[in-house]
Amino acid sequence: MATTKTLANWAVELKYEGIPRQVVEDAKKTFYNWLGCAIGGSSHEAVSIAIEALDELSGPRKASLYGRTEKFDVSHAALINGISSHVFDFDDTHLKTIIHPAGPVASALLALAESEGLTGKQFLTALVAGIEAECRIGNAVYPDHYDNGWHITGTAGVFGAAIAVGKALGLDELRMTYALGLAGSQPVGLRDQFGTMTKSFHPGRAAQNGHLAARLASKGYTTTLGIFENKRGWTNAISTKRDLTEITEGLGTRWEISLNSFKPFACGIVLHPIIDGCIRLRNEHGLNSDLTKIERIDVVVNPLVLELTGKTRPKDGLEGKFSYTHVCSAALIAGKCGEREFADSLVNGPETVALRQKVFATVDDKMPTDCALVTIVTSNQGTLTKEIIHAVGSADTPLTKQQLEDKFEDQVEPILGLERAKQITGVCDELEQVENLSDLIKITVR
Amino acid sequence: MATTKTLANWAVELKYEGIPRQVVEDAKKTFYNWLGCAIGGSSHEAVSIAIEALDELSGPRKASLYGRTEKFDVSHAALINGISSHVFDFDDTHLKTIIHPAGPVASALLALAESEGLTGKQFLTALVAGIEAECRIGNAVYPDHYDNGWHITGTAGVFGAAIAVGKALGLDELRMTYALGLAGSQPVGLRDQFGTMTKSFHPGRAAQNGHLAARLASKGYTTTLGIFENKRGWTNAISTKRDLTEITEGLGTRWEISLNSFKPFACGIVLHPIIDGCIRLRNEHGLNSDLTKIERIDVVVNPLVLELTGKTRPKDGLEGKFSYTHVCSAALIAGKCGEREFADSLVNGPETVALRQKVFATVDDKMPTDCALVTIVTSNQGTLTKEIIHAVGSADTPLTKQQLEDKFEDQVEPILGLERAKQITGVCDELEQVENLSDLIKITVR
Repeated sequence: MATTKTLANWAVELKYEGIPRQVVEDAKKTFYNWLGCAIGGSSHEAVSIAIEALDELSGPRKASLYGRTEKFDVSHAALINGISSHVFDFDDTHLKTIIHPAGPVASALLALAESEGLTGKQFLTALVAGIEAECRIGNAVYPDHYDNGWHITGTAGVFGAAIAVGKALGLDELRMTYALGLAGSQPVGLRDQFGTMTKSFHPGRAAQNGHLAARLASKGYTTTLGIFENKRGWTNAISTKRDLTEITEGLGTRWEISLNSFKPFACGIVLHPIIDGCIRLRNEHGLNSDLTKIERIDVVVNPLVLELTGKTRPKDGLEGKFSYTHVCSAALIAGKCGEREFADSLVNGPETVALRQKVFATVDDKMPTDCALVTIVTSNQGTLTKEIIHAVGSADTPLTKQQLEDKFEDQVEPILGLERAKQITGVCDELEQVENLSDLIKITVR
Repeated sequence: MATTKTLANWAVELKYEGIPRQVVEDAKKTFYNWLGCAIGGSSHEAVSIAIEALDELSGPRKASLYGRTEKFDVSHAALINGISSHVFDFDDTHLKTIIHPAGPVASALLALAESEGLTGKQFLTALVAGIEAECRIGNAVYPDHYDNGWHITGTAGVFGAAIAVGKALGLDELRMTYALGLAGSQPVGLRDQFGTMTKSFHPGRAAQNGHLAARLASKGYTTTLGIFENKRGWTNAISTKRDLTEITEGLGTRWEISLNSFKPFACGIVLHPIIDGCIRLRNEHGLNSDLTKIERIDVVVNPLVLELTGKTRPKDGLEGKFSYTHVCSAALIAGKCGEREFADSLVNGPETVALRQKVFATVDDKMPTDCALVTIVTSNQGTLTKEIIHAVGSADTPLTKQQLEDKFEDQVEPILGLERAKQITGVCDELEQVENLSDLIKITVR
């Protein structure tokens, strides 16, 4: 069977009962992590600008903006929530393709779930269908497509959103094929936007495009039936690598969503091993009880760390994300490295500055990027050393349930308070039991 | 100066007074032809499906759908009018790139002009800025980009729409650069959609994407500043040909909009020479006074004609567009070949069928595609011959003012009546004098 038809058919036929228990749990983690990011990013300037620009275009305001007070129509809400979920670059990563899978799919689907009153099981089924499609389509074209300048989260993400929304709308196979066709005609995103607000626009617009694709398809708007395999279709236009077997092989037995990973720290992944090392030494030796006892911090790292994040005197939070000295200091003080550890005031605080001046790095070509050696000289406990083999959050050391919760609370507490954060965690833990997703949404807004 | 900045600066600085008189006249023709197509296509099923699918998402209904009764928000109206203007493939063509320039630009701009009450001069200035940008960007990447599967009307069109809307919103140079950046992250359209409703979705969605780009940019949503010239930007991702000098060279002295062409007949351009020949013989010899006197019609054509349009017994209007026998028959009967000559009932009418059976084609490798030899044997006037050197509507034989008006009336009369068609023509003739475009819109709706 042709690729497009096979994928459409699989998505249409997928049932909650057909998804293995572990995959459901992995999907719940993906959703939970994404929701924390969406709430955590909701007060960012990019979100406020989008709201200001689009307010006068909104249709019936049936969908909430998580972490905020405003409502928008389901399509605009998908865009704006998509922006807020990616704006701190703290959301999930499918490491095989560097796709951030939840952004396009969950942003489109949750907005619809609120207005349509989907159950937790319906929601999870559509989420899994969308993310499987998205990551598999990414596998088919990665890395060439990404190397050529496309932001793969936006280009593959449209298909994921279309499948998820199409599934929620109950499309049949032909109309799901149309949804894929319309998605293929609307890729989003170029890597040249990295470092600007438009990077986070990409998952948001991909969500919106996928929603539009499924909505038009649901009424019979016709498209090509072979968007992936046809000569003038998506794959040939957008990539030199075109391995279509990646899209369909093992559908329903091999699950890409289970490979999804979650960042523990709100900065580039190359810094994660030294942050992990500092936090472990801090917690194991109670270093935070008197930071003045720390005399010197030495880190041995892969050369990329200094190349990408070599700033030693960051002047604000954004520069702090590119400073190995700052992250060591912040991690030792706070025992974590969330978005709050990159607040401008904290980066410039006297305690942080004093400690970062004691950090020194040595590069070692043989050190893998997810490893580091951290040595701390203290005046009261001697020299303490921690070797990080696979930093927390890497493929080999996924975040524990507790670490995911800590990350979630750390993002949500400043926006909605700790009690509400815990309440949302409770609902997400039992997401498959939720009878109406709009009940969850009610506690995600201010 | 960098390409993106140069283009943005030119668009921001462009004033009505700086546009040569002839270019203004060419822009008016482009707009008038497009408006006729938008009204003419308004009752197509693709338009009705889009309306049904999107009705519940509409924001404040400030913009009309031409030829119809409904209103939508300015963004959705841009999409739907864009679909209706392209659905019969009867709109304008920039022959150097095969871009249909008006679709994305005018659809986005006229919707905004209605809600903002732009003057005719403001409208024409923004239209010219948008179409120049769009066609020049197309020149930079054509033909490789098109050959690789992209529907260039949708990909280059987004920039045109962004520039036009940005101009109407009064963006400064930096924000116009953002508008181009956001446009670049949202290309639309693959050639694999040709023959489906999604082909006409492309100019509509390009209009909407350009509108969104300009609107977000107007509030300061940041993007890359070098979408065309940067390594990870639009041009490298989307094309192997990348001649950026096409975008900026001769801006304000060489005008692409003056190269725009208009189809006289509602079918593929390879059929135009034989239609032209049949109409000329009909009119010069009064053949329509008694069609039974026609014994045989012979056409000598380029081989492409039989390859692309070789159906001899079309069973409906869509097949009629791919039938050299039908178009000769219809042209001899009606003296024209507009959308109405492809109605299913007409294609199957006994008079049309009887005449098409007398049509015979011979191919000649040396016959250029815009030429044909038509010979009609009659029982009362002997053998009549017409050699068409450059068919009407080709670059060398543009439509006269009268032919454009005939085409317009032919499309608009069935929807709004002949009187209204003539009234709109009168306003469009003096478009630069219009004080508020919403006055024009009022007479374009039912």
